[in-house]
Amino acid sequence: MNYFNGILVLFVLATLNIVVSEHVCGFESCPKTKSNMINVHLVPHSHDDVGWLKTVDQYYYGSNNNIQHAGVQYILDTVVEELLKDSRRRFIQVETSFFFKWYSEQTVTMKIAVKQLVAEGRLEFAGGAWSMNDEATVHYQSVIDQFNLGLKFLKDTFGTCARPRIGWQIDPFGHSREMASIFAQMGYNGEFFARMDYVEKNTRLKSLAMEMIWRSSEYFKDSEIFTGLLYQHYGSPPGFCFDIHCQDDPIIDGKSYDNNVDKRVDDFIAYVTSMSKSFRANHIMVPMGDDFQYEDAEVNFKNMDKLIKYVNNRQLEGSKINLFYSTPSCYLYELHQLLQSWPNKTEDFFPYSSDNHSYWTGYFTSRPTQKRFERDGNHFLQTVKQLSTLANLTSVKHTKSLSILRQAMGVMQHHDAITGTEKQAVAQDYDQMLYNAIIGAENNARDALRVLTNHTSAEFQTCLELNISVCALTQTSANNIVVTLVNPLAHTSSQYVRVPVTEENYQVTDENGREISSEIVPVPLEILGLQHRSNDTQHELVFKASVKKISNFYIRVLPLPRKKNDLINDQTIPIAENDADEFTLENSLIRLVFTKSTGHLKAVKMNGVSENIHQSFAIYKGFQGNNGISKNRSSGAYVFRPDGEIQVLSDKIEYSIYNGKNVREVHQHVNEWISQVIRIYDGVNRVEFEWLIGPIPTDDGVGKEIVTRFTSNVYSNGTFYTDSNGREMLKRKRNQREFFEPDMTEEISGNYHPVTAQMYIQDDHKRITLLNDRSQGGTSLEDGELELMLHRRLLNDDAFGVGEALNEEQFGKGLIARGKVFLILNAVPENPNCFERLTHHELHLPFCKFFSKTNTVPSIVQHMMPDFNDFPESMELLSLEPYSTNKILLRLENFNSCGGIKSYNMHPLFESLRGRQIWEVTLDGNMPLRQMKRFKFHHDGTGIIPSSVSYFFTPHKPLEANYTMDASKFSVTLLPMQIRTFIVHQ
Amino acid sequence: MNYFNGILVLFVLATLNIVVSEHVCGFESCPKTKSNMINVHLVPHSHDDVGWLKTVDQYYYGSNNNIQHAGVQYILDTVVEELLKDSRRRFIQVETSFFFKWYSEQTVTMKIAVKQLVAEGRLEFAGGAWSMNDEATVHYQSVIDQFNLGLKFLKDTFGTCARPRIGWQIDPFGHSREMASIFAQMGYNGEFFARMDYVEKNTRLKSLAMEMIWRSSEYFKDSEIFTGLLYQHYGSPPGFCFDIHCQDDPIIDGKSYDNNVDKRVDDFIAYVTSMSKSFRANHIMVPMGDDFQYEDAEVNFKNMDKLIKYVNNRQLEGSKINLFYSTPSCYLYELHQLLQSWPNKTEDFFPYSSDNHSYWTGYFTSRPTQKRFERDGNHFLQTVKQLSTLANLTSVKHTKSLSILRQAMGVMQHHDAITGTEKQAVAQDYDQMLYNAIIGAENNARDALRVLTNHTSAEFQTCLELNISVCALTQTSANNIVVTLVNPLAHTSSQYVRVPVTEENYQVTDENGREISSEIVPVPLEILGLQHRSNDTQHELVFKASVKKISNFYIRVLPLPRKKNDLINDQTIPIAENDADEFTLENSLIRLVFTKSTGHLKAVKMNGVSENIHQSFAIYKGFQGNNGISKNRSSGAYVFRPDGEIQVLSDKIEYSIYNGKNVREVHQHVNEWISQVIRIYDGVNRVEFEWLIGPIPTDDGVGKEIVTRFTSNVYSNGTFYTDSNGREMLKRKRNQREFFEPDMTEEISGNYHPVTAQMYIQDDHKRITLLNDRSQGGTSLEDGELELMLHRRLLNDDAFGVGEALNEEQFGKGLIARGKVFLILNAVPENPNCFERLTHHELHLPFCKFFSKTNTVPSIVQHMMPDFNDFPESMELLSLEPYSTNKILLRLENFNSCGGIKSYNMHPLFESLRGRQIWEVTLDGNMPLRQMKRFKFHHDGTGIIPSSVSYFFTPHKPLEANYTMDASKFSVTLLPMQIRTFIVHQ
Repeated sequence: MNYFNGILVLFVLATLNIVVSEHVCGFESCPKTKSNMINVHLVPHSHDDVGWLKTVDQYYYGSNNNIQHAGVQYILDTVVEELLKDSRRRFIQVETSFFFKWYSEQTVTMKIAVKQLVAEGRLEFAGGAWSMNDEATVHYQSVIDQFNLGLKFLKDTFGTCARPRIGWQIDPFGHSREMASIFAQMGYNGEFFARMDYVEKNTRLKSLAMEMIWRSSEYFKDSEIFTGLLYQHYGSPPGFCFDIHCQDDPIIDGKSYDNNVDKRVDDFIAYVTSMSKSFRANHIMVPMGDDFQYEDAEVNFKNMDKLIKYVNNRQLEGSKINLFYSTPSCYLYELHQLLQSWPNKTEDFFPYSSDNHSYWTGYFTSRPTQKRFERDGNHFLQTVKQLSTLANLTSVKHTKSLSILRQAMGVMQHHDAITGTEKQAVAQDYDQMLYNAIIGAENNARDALRVLTNHTSAEFQTCLELNISVCALTQTSANNIVVTLVNPLAHTSSQYVRVPVTEENYQVTDENGREISSEIVPVPLEILGLQHRSNDTQHELVFKASVKKISNFYIRVLPLPRKKNDLINDQTIPIAENDADEFTLENSLIRLVFTKSTGHLKAVKMNGVSENIHQSFAIYKGFQGNNGISKNRSSGAYVFRPDGEIQVLSDKIEYSIYNGKNVREVHQHVNEWISQVIRIYDGVNRVEFEWLIGPIPTDDGVGKEIVTRFTSNVYSNGTFYTDSNGREMLKRKRNQREFFEPDMTEEISGNYHPVTAQMYIQDDHKRITLLNDRSQGGTSLEDGELELMLHRRLLNDDAFGVGEALNEEQFGKGLIARGKVFLILNAVPENPNCFERLTHHELHLPFCKFFSKTNTVPSIVQHMMPDFNDFPESMELLSLEPYSTNKILLRLENFNSCGGIKSYNMHPLFESLRGRQIWEVTLDGNMPLRQMKRFKFHHDGTGIIPSSVSYFFTPHKPLEANYTMDASKFSVTLLPMQIRTFIVHQ
Repeated sequence: MNYFNGILVLFVLATLNIVVSEHVCGFESCPKTKSNMINVHLVPHSHDDVGWLKTVDQYYYGSNNNIQHAGVQYILDTVVEELLKDSRRRFIQVETSFFFKWYSEQTVTMKIAVKQLVAEGRLEFAGGAWSMNDEATVHYQSVIDQFNLGLKFLKDTFGTCARPRIGWQIDPFGHSREMASIFAQMGYNGEFFARMDYVEKNTRLKSLAMEMIWRSSEYFKDSEIFTGLLYQHYGSPPGFCFDIHCQDDPIIDGKSYDNNVDKRVDDFIAYVTSMSKSFRANHIMVPMGDDFQYEDAEVNFKNMDKLIKYVNNRQLEGSKINLFYSTPSCYLYELHQLLQSWPNKTEDFFPYSSDNHSYWTGYFTSRPTQKRFERDGNHFLQTVKQLSTLANLTSVKHTKSLSILRQAMGVMQHHDAITGTEKQAVAQDYDQMLYNAIIGAENNARDALRVLTNHTSAEFQTCLELNISVCALTQTSANNIVVTLVNPLAHTSSQYVRVPVTEENYQVTDENGREISSEIVPVPLEILGLQHRSNDTQHELVFKASVKKISNFYIRVLPLPRKKNDLINDQTIPIAENDADEFTLENSLIRLVFTKSTGHLKAVKMNGVSENIHQSFAIYKGFQGNNGISKNRSSGAYVFRPDGEIQVLSDKIEYSIYNGKNVREVHQHVNEWISQVIRIYDGVNRVEFEWLIGPIPTDDGVGKEIVTRFTSNVYSNGTFYTDSNGREMLKRKRNQREFFEPDMTEEISGNYHPVTAQMYIQDDHKRITLLNDRSQGGTSLEDGELELMLHRRLLNDDAFGVGEALNEEQFGKGLIARGKVFLILNAVPENPNCFERLTHHELHLPFCKFFSKTNTVPSIVQHMMPDFNDFPESMELLSLEPYSTNKILLRLENFNSCGGIKSYNMHPLFESLRGRQIWEVTLDGNMPLRQMKRFKFHHDGTGIIPSSVSYFFTPHKPLEANYTMDASKFSVTLLPMQIRTFIVHQ
C-alpha cells in the first residue's frame, strides 16, 4: 500500500497558503515542494548530549576526545559558516544550553549573521529547552522550568519568530504523555522522536502508523499533538553519513574511477522509496546527523549538496523523488496542509525495549542519590525564585546566581543526567555543578531573607545533608539556633521538622516566643555508622510547625540543661502487644501491625480501612552477559534485566521501637546493608518508610538491584497506576500495551514503569498508594503487590554506549543511598486519588529550612510577605519567579483531577506584587497566549476535512489586565489539571 | 649552550631590509619578529600522501575512511576558508597533484580568493612538485619532470611569486644529495626534512647541528643549500595537536573549571624553550600538522589563534617567547638575515634508521616489478614528449593524454609509490593509473609517428610485455612486421633488438630494404612456463640496429618458409672447453669462464683485465617479530632486517648454452623459482644477467629476500660506490658514516644503500661495476663483493604504518619478477667511470619499439626529423618536450664527470625547432635563469660575513637569444655534470 501514489491526490489552495503565511511565523521560508512527487525533507541536525560520556564542558570544548570525539563549539562554528554559504541549507539546533554558551563567545558581526540565519529560517531551533530532557524520570515542574529557560533565551536573542514549533525528543528512552501535553500547552505543533518499543515500531511501520495524533491529556480536549516516529533512529540513512565520524563514502563526482554518483543516487532513491511506503503522506523526513556530528560541517553540507543535486537531476529521467534541505517544522507544515488523517494515540510510550531482552527500565532507578539531589535542587530553586521575587533581588550578582541554578537544573533534566546513564566522572561533574549552583543561590536566599525580615545579619544557612541527619550548625552544642522555615506552597502548611542535634534537651519556641511541643528521637544506628560523618549526632529534635502560604517562620531552638538519657524513656509510650505474635504502632489516624517475631509490617489501618500489607526488601541479581547478542544483554545503567528469581528478604529482622509523643518509629535492621525506619507522625495521614541501602555487596561477583515490595490482598486484577512526570495518572495492565502485543520474554523488567511521584493499586474497596521522593522504577507483578526499585549496583555495562557498569562507589565501597517511600491506604470509592496528589505536592515542596545562631537574630520578628488570598484546595502556585526586569512570572495550577474547576481572583496577588499589567502566556512563559496558534490535524475516523490553522482550544479567554481595571477582571478559572501562566509587569 | 642568549646579538640593518625586499618576491608579507626574543614560527601544514594506505582518489575524496580517515578535498576547502578569516594565518601547501585537482573544482569566486591568499603569502607553496618524491629510488630525470609539472601549474595559475622557495621533504625515508642539488638548481633557498638516522639526529641535537649547509655536488661550487632537520618529526608539539585526528585538549579559555590556558601556555613555553636550546638562532620553526590533518581546519586555527594570543600575552609578564604564524620560507628568510654561520654537510642521509634494528633499506627493493614499470613509464614519457614536439601535436586530446602521463609519472615518484611502501590495493591502483596513462599516450606516439612519416595508417603499436617475450602482434605468425625503432638519445645508437616470434625463420631488412643479420634465440624454459601467457613464443628474433639521434628507423621482419629446428644448431658455435672443469662464452670484447660442473660464472675478462668474478644468488630470511619493541622489529616493506646468516645458492645448477652468431647465452636453472640468462652480445661491452625470480616460496612460514652476489679478488678495502638518483657517485665506507658513529647492530641492512643506476668497487687495477634496470638496494659486505637485492616476499608488517606484509601475489602465487643486471669489468686507472655512465644512459633510454603490420606500411620511407649536430659524447638531450603553446623545453646535460667541459652550438637545433627566441631557465623549466636568486648562507669556519642575497653562481651567463642573432650567440658550454634548461619560443 502506498498512500502518496494513490487516490489521496493533494492540492494546495492558493488562498489557503495566503492565510497560512499570515498566521504562521516563518513558514514562508520553507522549501518549495512538488505535489506530484515524493518530497524528501533532509533535516541536518546534530544530537549533542548535555553530558554523557564526557562532561558538559568537555563536550562543548572538545576536550578529552580520547573518551569520545566531540566538540560542540566546532559544530556551531562550522555549521553557521556552512549555512552562510548557501541560502538553501538548513540546520536545526536543539540544545539551548550549548547554543547559549557558544553564542556568548561570538563577535558582534557573527551575532548579526546568526540572527539573519535565524530570521530566514536557515538556522531553526527545535526543542529549544536547555537540554533534551528525559521523559521518564523528570518532574513536570522542572521540565517547564527548563523550557522557560531555553525559550526565553531564544526569544530575548532572536525574537518571537525563532521560537521552536516542534519538539525534538529523538534520544530519550521512551516518551511520556505529560511531555506531549507540555508541548501542546507551549503551542508546539508536534513532536518527533526515535525510540519506541521495537515490536510497536515494527507494527507501526507495517500499518502506516508511524505518525499519529496523540491525545496527551485525559482532561483537556485539545491536548492533541502530532507525534512522529523517525524511520530509522535519528541517524542519517545507512551509507549516507557524510560526517567525519563516519566512514561512508562521499559523493565522488569528479573524473575518477571511483566516481560513484550513479550508485549513490540509486541507493538513496531506493532507500527513500522504500521508506515512503511506511508513511502516509507524499512527504517524508530524513534526518541527516547523529551524536555530535557536524563538527566539520563542510563535509556534511558539501556532500548533501551533491546528493540533492544528483538525486534531483534524475527527475529529468522521470524520477519522482524531490530532495531538499528542510526542517521538522517545515515538514510538519507540509503535512498539516494535506487532506490527510492520522491514527490516534492516547497512552504513553513506556517502557521502551530495543530487543526482547532489553527493556530500558533500569534507568528509572539508576543513580538514586543523584535523582534525589536533583529534587533537592528543584526544591531549592523554587524557594529561591520565590524569595528573590518577594525580596525583589535584582542585582547582577543575584540574577546571575539564580541563572546558574536554573541552568544547572536545566542540565540535570538531560536524558543522560537525571536518568543516571552517564559515566561516573560525568555524574560527579553534574553533582559538583548542581552543588555549586545551590551554594551560589544560597546567598540569594540569605539576602532575600535579610530583606524580608529585620534580621540583616543572620546566617540563614542551609544544611544539604539533613537527609542523613547532618548539619554542622545545629550540631554545635553551644549554639542557640533559629530555624527559619520557608513554605513555598500557596497554602498554610503544618509539617514535622527534624533537626539533628547533639544535646538531648531543647526548648523550642515559635517566633512569638511560645513554646512548641518537641521531642528528641534517636537516629538509627546505621546512620550513626556512616563512615564519613562525625559521630556526634545521635538524635534529631522533632517538632511540628505551621507556616503560612509563601511565607517564612522562625523556630528558636535552645539547648536546655537537662540530663542525658532521661529523655527518650520519658517520652516513649508502651507498645501495644497481643498474643498473636504482633505489636502495633498507632496514632489517631493510623494503626500499623507488625509481626513480633520477625519485625515485619503485616497490616495497616487508616482512612477507615484495614489491609494486610506486608512490606519487605528483595534483591534481583543483575544479569551478566557479554552483550554480543540480545540474549547475552547485561543488566546495566539503562537496562534492568534480572537474572532468575527475586530473593525476598523475609527472614527475621532485628528491630527497635521508638514510640514517642508525636513520632512513632520502628527501626529495622534488615541485614548488614539494608535498614529502614517505619514511621508515623501524629496527625499525618501517611506511613513513612525511610530506607537506607548500601554498600550493596558484590564480593560474590554479582550485581544486585534492591526493591521494596508491598503485598496485600487488594484484588488489583493485573492493573496498577503510575504517574506521568508527577501529573496525570496512567493505567498500566500487566503484560499489556495499548497498541500492540509486547514481547514479554523479560516479564519482570517488561512490566516496570517509571514512578516519578506515585503509584497505586486498587480494587472496589481499597487503594494502596506509594509516594516516593525521587524517580524510581515500579511495578505490580502480582495482584495486590506494589514494588519500587530503590537502588542498583551492577558489574556489567549493558552495551548501550555508556561503557561502564553502573557501580557507584563512595569511600571505596558501594554507594549508600537513603530515601523515603510513603504509603497511603485509602477507601474506595469514597476517596478518589486526590489526597494522595495533595500529599505529593507537600512532599515535593516541603518547608525549606535555614539555620542561624540566635545571637545574630534580633528578638523582634518582622516579615514582608505578599498579601493575597489563600488558594483554593488543589490549587497551587506552581511558579513565582523573576522573569525579567520588572516582570514576574506566575504559574497557577489546579493539580487535582478530582477537585473540579477552581476559580481564583488574582487581583490581591497582582497588587501585592506591585503589578501594573498582567497577561497570560504559554506554559513556558515566553509567548502571550493570544499569539499561540497550533496546527490542527485530523484523526482517523473523524473524516477528512480541509486543513486549516486554528487556535489551540482553551476554555478561557487569556487573561490580560492592568492596574486601571476593576478587580473582577482578574478572576481566573482553572479546569482540573490545568496550569495557567502569567507575566506581571511591575 | 644557548646561542641566541649569548654573544651573537643580532641586528637587522634597515638598508639591508630594503635591499632584500627589492630582491625577494613575497617576503614583505612575512610576519614581524622580535630581535630580543625567541621567535617561534608556527608552520601550519598537512602531509598529504599521494597514495599510501588509500589510493590517490580515495585520499582526495575522503572515501574508504575505514582504512584511514583522510579527505584532501576537505583539507583544502576548510584551510582556505580559515585563511580568509584572518590575514595573520598561514598555511603551506605541498603536493601540487592534490591542489591541482582541488583547484580545478573551484568556482571563479573561490579561485580569485585563493589567488589573493597566495599573493599575500597566506597560502604558500612549499616543495610544490606533483608529489613529495622519494629520494632513494627515484631517477633524477623523473624528479625534474615532476617538479616541472608542479611548478608549471603554480606559475601558470598564480604567477612567479607563488613559486616555492624551499624544499619540504618531511617524510621520505632518507635524503639524497642529488635531490638537494636539484633544489639548488631550481633556485630553492633551502630544504627541510624530518627523518634522519636516529644516532645522527641525537648527535646533531647535542651539537647544534640540526641546520647545516649542504654542498650537494662535487662539481658545482655553488650547489650549497641550507638544510634543516625538524626538531620532532613533522607533527605538532606533543600535546598541541589541535586536529580532529588528535585527542589533545583544546585551549579552554572560557569560564569553566576546565579552563587550561595557564597550563597549556606553561607547557608550550617549556617546550619551545627546550627546543630552542638545540638550535643556533633565536628563531625556531614549529610545524603544526601531520598526515592528512586540517580536514576541519577551523579546529586547528581556532586553537592556534588562542595559543598565540595567550603565549604572547605572557610577554607582559616578561616572557621572551614570541609566537606567530609563519612559513618555512619566512623562517629561512629570517635565518639568512642573521650574522650566523652553519655547519657543513657533504655526503647524503642514507641509510635511514629509526632505531637500532630498523634500517629502512628494504624499500630500496620493495615491489621490484612496480619499480621497473615506473622506469618503463619514464622511458615512454620521454619518447612521447620528443615525438609530440617533433610532430607538433597540439590538439587538446594530445595535450591531455601527455598531461595524464606526466601526472601519472609525478604520482609514481611519491615516497609511498615508487618505494613500494603502499598497501597492495594501492599498488594495483598505481599500476592501473600508469598503465592507462601509457595506453592513452600511445595514441600520441602513433599520431606523431604518422605525422613524422608517410605511414598515416600504420598501427605503431607498443608491446608492454616485451620483457617477458610477449607481443601479440609479432607472435601472430601470419604477419609481416615493421618494427619502428625510436631512438630518444641525441646520439646515433646501435643496439640489439629482440622481438618475440613463433615462426623460427625470418628475413629482416632495414628501411632501405637491405637485409640485416639476425638470429633466432630460444626463450628460457622458465619464461615459457609462466602461467598467464600462451605458449606460442618459443623464440626471440635478435638483430642489431643503428638509429640516428632523436630519430626513428624501420625494420621489416618477414617470416620465411624455412623449416623449423634447423635454425639454432645452424647458428650455434661450439663451446670452448678445457680440462679444468671450465667452459667459456666469448666474443670479441668479453670472455666469460664458467665452472662446468656447477654452471656458475667464475671469471670475466674484458677491457684488458681479467678477474675471478663468481656470481650467485642468495637468500636472506626476513626477521619475523611482533614489532612491540625495537628488537622484535620485522623485516617489511620499509625495513630490511635479515634473520641470521645469508644462504648462498652455491650448489650445482642446471644450465644450457646458446652460443650464437651475435648472441651468446648461458641459461641457468638455479632452483625451482630462480633462473637466469647470462648473456653477451657481439660488440657490446657488458655482461648481461637477466634474472627471473619467483614465486618466492613461503610454505615454510618464512619470508625471503633474494640477492644476486658477485665476489672477486678486487681489494676494495671496505669501500664501494653507489649513484645518487642516477647522477653523481657517492663513496660508501662499510660500517661508517660521514658525521657520526652509526649503531651497526644490524650490520647487513645497515650497510645497504640505494642503487638507482649503478654501484661499483675498485682497487688500484680493476673496477667492477653493476648497472641495474630499476632501483634496488645494494651493498658490499666483504671486500671484492657486490650485492644487489632483487626481490622480496615477506610475511610480516614492519609496523611503520602500511599495516600489511610485503607479500605480493599474482595468480594466487608469489609474484614473479624479471630483470637485468649488467656487469662491466674495467681497468683502473686507465678508464675512469665514464663508459659505465654512458652505458647507464643507453640502458635508461633504449630504442622505443613500435610494431605495425607491413601491409599498412608503404614501401617508401620518409622521416621528418630535426636536423642538428650530433651532441658531443657525454652530452645528452635530457628533455625535448612541449612546454606550452608555441614553447618547447630543452634540457642539455653533460652527464659525465670525466669528460670535461662540453661546448655545443644550439643554433641548428633552434632552427630545426622553428625557434624565434630562446632563453635559459631554472632546472625545472619555469623561471628565467636571470631571475633566479638564492639566499647565501655562511659556513662554520668561513668567518661571519654580513648576510646578503646573491645570484646563484653559474659559470655562464644565461643564454638568451632570438632568431635575429648570429648563430655564434647560441653556443653553450656545460661543465661536467651540469644540466642547462632552455625554453624555445616558436
